[in-house]
Amino acid sequence: MSSEADIIARLAREVPSRIGARHPADVPRGIGDDAAVVRARPGRDWVVSTDAFIEGRHFLSRIHPADAVGFKALARATSDLAAMGARPRYFLLTLALPVRKAGAWLDEFARGMSRAARRFRMHLIGGDVSRDEHMHAAVTVIGEAPRTGVLTRSGGNPGDAVFVTGRLGAAQAGLDLLQREGARALTRHAGSYFLVRHLRPEPRLALGTWLAANRLASAAMDISDGLSTDLARLCAASRAGAVIHAASLPFALDDHLRARRSESPYQSAARLRRALHGGEDYELLFTVPRRNLSRVPARFRGVPITRIGELTARGTILLVTDGRTRKLRALGWDHFARH
Amino acid sequence: MSSEADIIARLAREVPSRIGARHPADVPRGIGDDAAVVRARPGRDWVVSTDAFIEGRHFLSRIHPADAVGFKALARATSDLAAMGARPRYFLLTLALPVRKAGAWLDEFARGMSRAARRFRMHLIGGDVSRDEHMHAAVTVIGEAPRTGVLTRSGGNPGDAVFVTGRLGAAQAGLDLLQREGARALTRHAGSYFLVRHLRPEPRLALGTWLAANRLASAAMDISDGLSTDLARLCAASRAGAVIHAASLPFALDDHLRARRSESPYQSAARLRRALHGGEDYELLFTVPRRNLSRVPARFRGVPITRIGELTARGTILLVTDGRTRKLRALGWDHFARH
Repeated sequence: MSSEADIIARLAREVPSRIGARHPADVPRGIGDDAAVVRARPGRDWVVSTDAFIEGRHFLSRIHPADAVGFKALARATSDLAAMGARPRYFLLTLALPVRKAGAWLDEFARGMSRAARRFRMHLIGGDVSRDEHMHAAVTVIGEAPRTGVLTRSGGNPGDAVFVTGRLGAAQAGLDLLQREGARALTRHAGSYFLVRHLRPEPRLALGTWLAANRLASAAMDISDGLSTDLARLCAASRAGAVIHAASLPFALDDHLRARRSESPYQSAARLRRALHGGEDYELLFTVPRRNLSRVPARFRGVPITRIGELTARGTILLVTDGRTRKLRALGWDHFARH
Repeated sequence: MSSEADIIARLAREVPSRIGARHPADVPRGIGDDAAVVRARPGRDWVVSTDAFIEGRHFLSRIHPADAVGFKALARATSDLAAMGARPRYFLLTLALPVRKAGAWLDEFARGMSRAARRFRMHLIGGDVSRDEHMHAAVTVIGEAPRTGVLTRSGGNPGDAVFVTGRLGAAQAGLDLLQREGARALTRHAGSYFLVRHLRPEPRLALGTWLAANRLASAAMDISDGLSTDLARLCAASRAGAVIHAASLPFALDDHLRARRSESPYQSAARLRRALHGGEDYELLFTVPRRNLSRVPARFRGVPITRIGELTARGTILLVTDGRTRKLRALGWDHFARH
């Protein structure tokens, strides 16, 4: 049976953490003390965010492999740094585990988290381990940004164009597939883009820092709970409304599923619903003033950037579909709402 | 029924957070965006730690009032900053709640957390709210410390004297009382020191910053899991052993309980066991080189400081009781250990 010290040692061995090694100048203290010490570089601010990842809420042990849980727990929190235009540096992990998950499951979890940490160039600098009936993770991420500015939700103005990165609805389609077919979908559809986006989302870090450094965007956030819900948040923070064109939405497609004639993800009503309300795409949603429009590329490092509408002065969010305009209700994810 | 936005708004209204208000120069962005932005003052580092507080593990809804849960969730994490000699500034809260706790319970919780935040002069700058079957909090605290140094666990040397603050075993005695008498102990023993220390622990912040500023201590940590367990951690980090004198231990007493002749907490075996292994006192444990001994006061701002032993070169921890020496086993709190 594991002790807390054993669990911490196993995590620190697997995940980049510099435990026992020489700390760089900007982390005088990492794991192993009561707290970590981080030193800002001149002209840089720290950008901090925290996110929960809970068994039965954010993932299901029945269908989600432990390494994907570890990857996604970190990716989800790191996406908030992408949305601010910050460069990820460190993270802290608060982990509550049932005993049955403290063995092989934890090792797989740590491997997935390690893969994400290496991909995003982050180091684990602290945490807390306790026991619970089901697994709970809370991840606090720390990024750095130049003082000249971060991206925020509140800077949008009427007339600004609304953009999204990537393709919407992929993560929800991946979850639907897993729920429909169970864990065997993991092998049957191993090449599926939907599954990859659902299990190992890719925060749009490079684009976020590029937008911030070039001061192109007036407002930005990541799409974690669904476009309809997150756009409403951006509009509320910017005191604006928006008009979105359904025909412009970049729907996610999956060549693997198409080739296998798993047609159902392509039904258009489901596709629109997932693009509007499906959560966990971790794409960026951002607004650009007209004067900057010519500087927004169609793709950035292979990721499509799509104009889907514009901000308006009115406080409502409208969706235009086949020439008809209706109010777009926020039907994305809300843990406490009844849909 | 509450929405996430409603819960966040209620927390931000109750707990000092500067939401909607003008942020000070060192928090350009607080609650309400994807992440918070913190700006270090020249010559200062940020000190960061995270701690879980879980229903059924760290507290029991049957006996622990919601406001004490809120207070203690923050106090517990903040004690790690005291142990580093850092001044608390900000915190982030990841909160998972069952629906039955999203109403009056949450408001009481927020009031208790607010009380702690005001007492420790901290501001809430971010967080995450989700739903779960029972309540989970993860609190990330951010403090600041001069670059000239923090207190760490690893600087102790053989020959250094070992000190503790306050009186040991009070929090455990408070928990024992609550478990024995149930929630009615809260009114019956409203003046009990044991209950106060258990429900609203006081991180030794002033002493921590004073020790760090005056470079008196060679090593320090807070006692969260019990002296025997935490001293073993300090010794491991400092690659030292220790000898502790049972007769020197500052046992917690409770005038209220004595006056009421609730005698059982005073039985000496139980008292020693609680002082050695009882968790959650959040007192400081620190070591002082001989050359600095004369500068350690007997009290600091009313809190007793007691010398209980010294570090040794051997890797074992010994307890001297009535002239007999035995090995002190680490029998404090470990979520994954079997006692």
